[in-house]
Amino acid sequence: MNFRSDNVTGIAPEILAAIAAVNAGPAPSYGEDEITGRLGRRVAELFEHEVAVFPVATGTAANALALATLTPPWGAIYCHEAAHIQSDECGAPEFFAAGAKLLPLAGEDAKLMPATVEAALLERGVVHHVQPSALSISQATEAGTLYRPAEIAALGALARRRGLALHMDGARFANAVAALGCTPAELSWRSGVDVLSLGATKNGALAAEAVVFFDPARAADFAFRRKRGGHLFSKMRFLSVQLDAYLADGLWLRHAAHANRLASRLSAGLTALPDARLRHPTEANEVFVELPERVIDAFSRAGFGFYRWGGGVSNCLRFVTAFDTRESDVERLIAVARAT
Amino acid sequence: MNFRSDNVTGIAPEILAAIAAVNAGPAPSYGEDEITGRLGRRVAELFEHEVAVFPVATGTAANALALATLTPPWGAIYCHEAAHIQSDECGAPEFFAAGAKLLPLAGEDAKLMPATVEAALLERGVVHHVQPSALSISQATEAGTLYRPAEIAALGALARRRGLALHMDGARFANAVAALGCTPAELSWRSGVDVLSLGATKNGALAAEAVVFFDPARAADFAFRRKRGGHLFSKMRFLSVQLDAYLADGLWLRHAAHANRLASRLSAGLTALPDARLRHPTEANEVFVELPERVIDAFSRAGFGFYRWGGGVSNCLRFVTAFDTRESDVERLIAVARAT
Amino acid sequence: MNFRSDNVTGIAPEILAAIAAVNAGPAPSYGEDEITGRLGRRVAELFEHEVAVFPVATGTAANALALATLTPPWGAIYCHEAAHIQSDECGAPEFFAAGAKLLPLAGEDAKLMPATVEAALLERGVVHHVQPSALSISQATEAGTLYRPAEIAALGALARRRGLALHMDGARFANAVAALGCTPAELSWRSGVDVLSLGATKNGALAAEAVVFFDPARAADFAFRRKRGGHLFSKMRFLSVQLDAYLADGLWLRHAAHANRLASRLSAGLTALPDARLRHPTEANEVFVELPERVIDAFSRAGFGFYRWGGGVSNCLRFVTAFDTRESDVERLIAVARAT
Amino acid sequence: MNFRSDNVTGIAPEILAAIAAVNAGPAPSYGEDEITGRLGRRVAELFEHEVAVFPVATGTAANALALATLTPPWGAIYCHEAAHIQSDECGAPEFFAAGAKLLPLAGEDAKLMPATVEAALLERGVVHHVQPSALSISQATEAGTLYRPAEIAALGALARRRGLALHMDGARFANAVAALGCTPAELSWRSGVDVLSLGATKNGALAAEAVVFFDPARAADFAFRRKRGGHLFSKMRFLSVQLDAYLADGLWLRHAAHANRLASRLSAGLTALPDARLRHPTEANEVFVELPERVIDAFSRAGFGFYRWGGGVSNCLRFVTAFDTRESDVERLIAVARAT
Repeated sequence: MNFRSDNVTGIAPEILAAIAAVNAGPAPSYGEDEITGRLGRRVAELFEHEVAVFPVATGTAANALALATLTPPWGAIYCHEAAHIQSDECGAPEFFAAGAKLLPLAGEDAKLMPATVEAALLERGVVHHVQPSALSISQATEAGTLYRPAEIAALGALARRRGLALHMDGARFANAVAALGCTPAELSWRSGVDVLSLGATKNGALAAEAVVFFDPARAADFAFRRKRGGHLFSKMRFLSVQLDAYLADGLWLRHAAHANRLASRLSAGLTALPDARLRHPTEANEVFVELPERVIDAFSRAGFGFYRWGGGVSNCLRFVTAFDTRESDVERLIAVARAT
Repeated sequence: MNFRSDNVTGIAPEILAAIAAVNAGPAPSYGEDEITGRLGRRVAELFEHEVAVFPVATGTAANALALATLTPPWGAIYCHEAAHIQSDECGAPEFFAAGAKLLPLAGEDAKLMPATVEAALLERGVVHHVQPSALSISQATEAGTLYRPAEIAALGALARRRGLALHMDGARFANAVAALGCTPAELSWRSGVDVLSLGATKNGALAAEAVVFFDPARAADFAFRRKRGGHLFSKMRFLSVQLDAYLADGLWLRHAAHANRLASRLSAGLTALPDARLRHPTEANEVFVELPERVIDAFSRAGFGFYRWGGGVSNCLRFVTAFDTRESDVERLIAVARAT
Repeated sequence: MNFRSDNVTGIAPEILAAIAAVNAGPAPSYGEDEITGRLGRRVAELFEHEVAVFPVATGTAANALALATLTPPWGAIYCHEAAHIQSDECGAPEFFAAGAKLLPLAGEDAKLMPATVEAALLERGVVHHVQPSALSISQATEAGTLYRPAEIAALGALARRRGLALHMDGARFANAVAALGCTPAELSWRSGVDVLSLGATKNGALAAEAVVFFDPARAADFAFRRKRGGHLFSKMRFLSVQLDAYLADGLWLRHAAHANRLASRLSAGLTALPDARLRHPTEANEVFVELPERVIDAFSRAGFGFYRWGGGVSNCLRFVTAFDTRESDVERLIAVARAT
Repeated sequence: MNFRSDNVTGIAPEILAAIAAVNAGPAPSYGEDEITGRLGRRVAELFEHEVAVFPVATGTAANALALATLTPPWGAIYCHEAAHIQSDECGAPEFFAAGAKLLPLAGEDAKLMPATVEAALLERGVVHHVQPSALSISQATEAGTLYRPAEIAALGALARRRGLALHMDGARFANAVAALGCTPAELSWRSGVDVLSLGATKNGALAAEAVVFFDPARAADFAFRRKRGGHLFSKMRFLSVQLDAYLADGLWLRHAAHANRLASRLSAGLTALPDARLRHPTEANEVFVELPERVIDAFSRAGFGFYRWGGGVSNCLRFVTAFDTRESDVERLIAVARAT
């Protein structure tokens, strides 16, 4: 009954079992183990492309390390003003990129439009300005919405034309793939994504994200950056195996589809209320809905966890469903709302 | 039979069980959970002192984040030239401390003497020089040796007198406590240590270290630094519980004592050979011994893992024992050596 | 006839003479000289307040070094989106502040309103967000407009109430003082300014700006930052004497008043044209005016220097007058415009 | 009679005159002026090589900016332990190079030997270590000694073989050229130097140093780094013209030769004393000599300025001669010494 975030969840049983399964005996440290090797091959196969894959433990590390490879310290990274990298990482991208500048842009439902990016691009080569270096988008977005392949491709084409690298914060990439029914390739390199932060933590891992480079040449420095950032695990097999189990046998998509389905149900249930107003379309596993205070109070009294989006007295609530959300909890929430 | 490092090991069964035990149901994220709270109280009790405790996943993160709180960017951190922070962290302390300078010093058996530090201290207040800010020592050292409480206290007194904070890299702190039969307090704050990187990974954790501040006021910034460094786990309970289980019921010291005992046995067995020469006293869980090439070859043929210390063709080998090293492997290694 | 900027100018004769006058014989280096001491006393007297004064050679250095003392690396600096620190310093503030984040805000005529700042302030103490640390305003602004004392005081009160330091980029502070007829004190500390970048270069110096702290305690680190940034001159007397001569006998205000007067004349002359539209009020030494292409062409043909504001094909021109602008050039420009 | 340093001097009359000479009228800012262009051509001609030249105002800026282009943040810069970049720049190289590590090495008379560097080189490609990136030497050294062309070439060959860039801190490059009678080319690119910090301040400029790249491709980022560091002068002509006048007509070498000759005279005069011991050979414009306290006292009483080298009660004095040192002052100093 805690809908505050998908990071209040535990570890998916399959992933915990996978950790236990590789625990016997010694293994080479720092990623020289065979599970890490296998993970690389699995990601390549899944994305149908040559890749360089680097497991790290947090989404902030994944994003910040990825972005740092895409921009010089005097570079500009364009992103949505609501992006996690801009608003929720305490300046980690600036730290890892030695002071590069994020340029936040507006856009409905937390999505960027090519024209908005284009209009904001600074002239290249003028020494007084930071230099346009990267574009970062979130899939799913912070508003629980999704970029369609054609939308990503339009941003990817702009990025290529204007010399920007395209990064995707895929903390909830699984939810996007599951919801859109696209292949991972279609939502990434085929649409112009250069580097993907592929999340697993919110969808069942203990703590595991993969930075996926579709052009391994771009990753030349990454190993040094990761070590220097304190993000190289000595017992790497335990990080890699989480991702390996996550991506094996479609586990990641089953878990994401479950979360998406319940978010959809929750959204439908709440927006059927007379006073409810959906803030953003419910496309993945997050629901943003404006509700009367009496309904909010009822949720609190019933012990449900949620966020007042924007903080304070906001009457827009965020609900996040996850791999372990129970259908019965969703139904109960809707019932409580109806009963007010 | 892999003696290369104590980081080739898996997870101690007690710690894996503890992870599984806290997996049921949701928990507040980012350290607001009760296990993280309990860990703080446990560390305080164990060290008999008020503390601020911050779990992180790697030793490099622990050291670099700790040091960053102890020095301005224009500060100097004094350490042994063999220190992990100087030689094996790819510049992580410089990264986290925004370019502070490590000043490496010499010292037998990887230990620093107060006179050496004193002689190297730069004049404070001269704007041309980096400013003396911190002293960092490793316990156990990179040579597998130990500082006695009086030795730490002498460095601690110097540090206090000259305005340096004293940091201890305790990646193998458990081995030191177990070997010296001191209390954790005696080897830390009672001897003048301000901040301790308390390791668990090498001694049985999946990936867990605790940064322990004995003056919580010094830790005021730490939470921001940790988040900004990408080291704040959303599912923090799984990091905290590793440390909690590690420190509960003396598990950490039992594991360390086991490793120490086998290192001692291995050291005695090898140094009984006519051509062997011990490079450093064996005081914790590491053995550094110079051996004839024919013995080294025999080890390789028998499938033992070890390091040639200093790299290349060095005939000084490092053996590291761990919580899961089997006595029989140690005996077999000695037997192989004797048979050459 | 070059109106592109006030930095295309040479050195005011009085300042060049002052440099020459202190050239005889040796002087203590790095600011231990008596001219630097005298400068400190002069600034204190002029601002009617205790101050710590640090000469540097560029406005970017002044701003970036000043801001770095006001924010931790995980801090946020609020500024106008057109501010020089945001748009024209290639990320220098982020560099000197170890990756702190500038949060650009909108506001008419390049001025910030308290309500805009207040609405943007992030919640303090939340580890996911950068922490509100400083507010920076420009006087005169990048639009050539001015903050009145009451406007600064309102921002100053907000800053104090919300725990922000208030920085003023005074690259054209002289023009503001001259135009408003206020005392330097009224436009700075009396209105809540904590640190002022006091410019001289644009108004007659070779290359000299002073960072003025009204609370010397805040300046404790500045000397290290300046040295470490390569901004501590060995032959400091030649930097200090520029500022000393600049501020002596009202030279700075005479020069600024001259520039302001000609800007005002130029503005009046151009806006009298039927097709001209003033973009921003002309309050200091800059004129922003939209003109028909035929007038712009005429200016080019006549050899006048100016900027197309916003770049490219913008028909909004920026004209900047300076201490050495000749009245006859202004009249000729107006005449050319009228003749088209 | 101030022999403390060559930075207590004023501006050479020729250079002050050159500043005044270019003061009439406006000039394009930020280095687009013709004097800056002329300077580039002059340096190329003087060094007989294609170059990219960047004027900055301080030696620390020149060194730190130059080194930052030669190393990634996880790189190692090898230098002498007495090097200015290691000991006297408050960590500026670490700041500009985003936390790269300086590895200080020993060597007689402040000079590095190839074998010392070779022995210290870390293995490349190991992610735990900082990566060997640059070698920096000072010419003249901090001990007032000189590298002969063959000595530089040996270091240059090593650097090339091991993938290091070779930087030369030439704060006193003029003294080296004048003393050795070599061409600038022989002491720089012909011997393998990639980037030279070419000093002028100590030898007569107000404040001017040039960063000279012998491979302009290496300088691709420099302009952004300089701007971002606050080191791009708007009125660049006044920086460039100092260097231009300095290098024109052999002024730099005449001034340096004068200083060298007086240092040589001073050295000979003092070492003729029975109790004196020369600490380092006097090869440029610095004299390091150990003297009895009674002689040191006599110097103080006579009002001479000098440094006790190493600080405190050191009886090793440093005397520095400069372009404006008077022969009579040197003779008087010797006479005072003899009279004790």
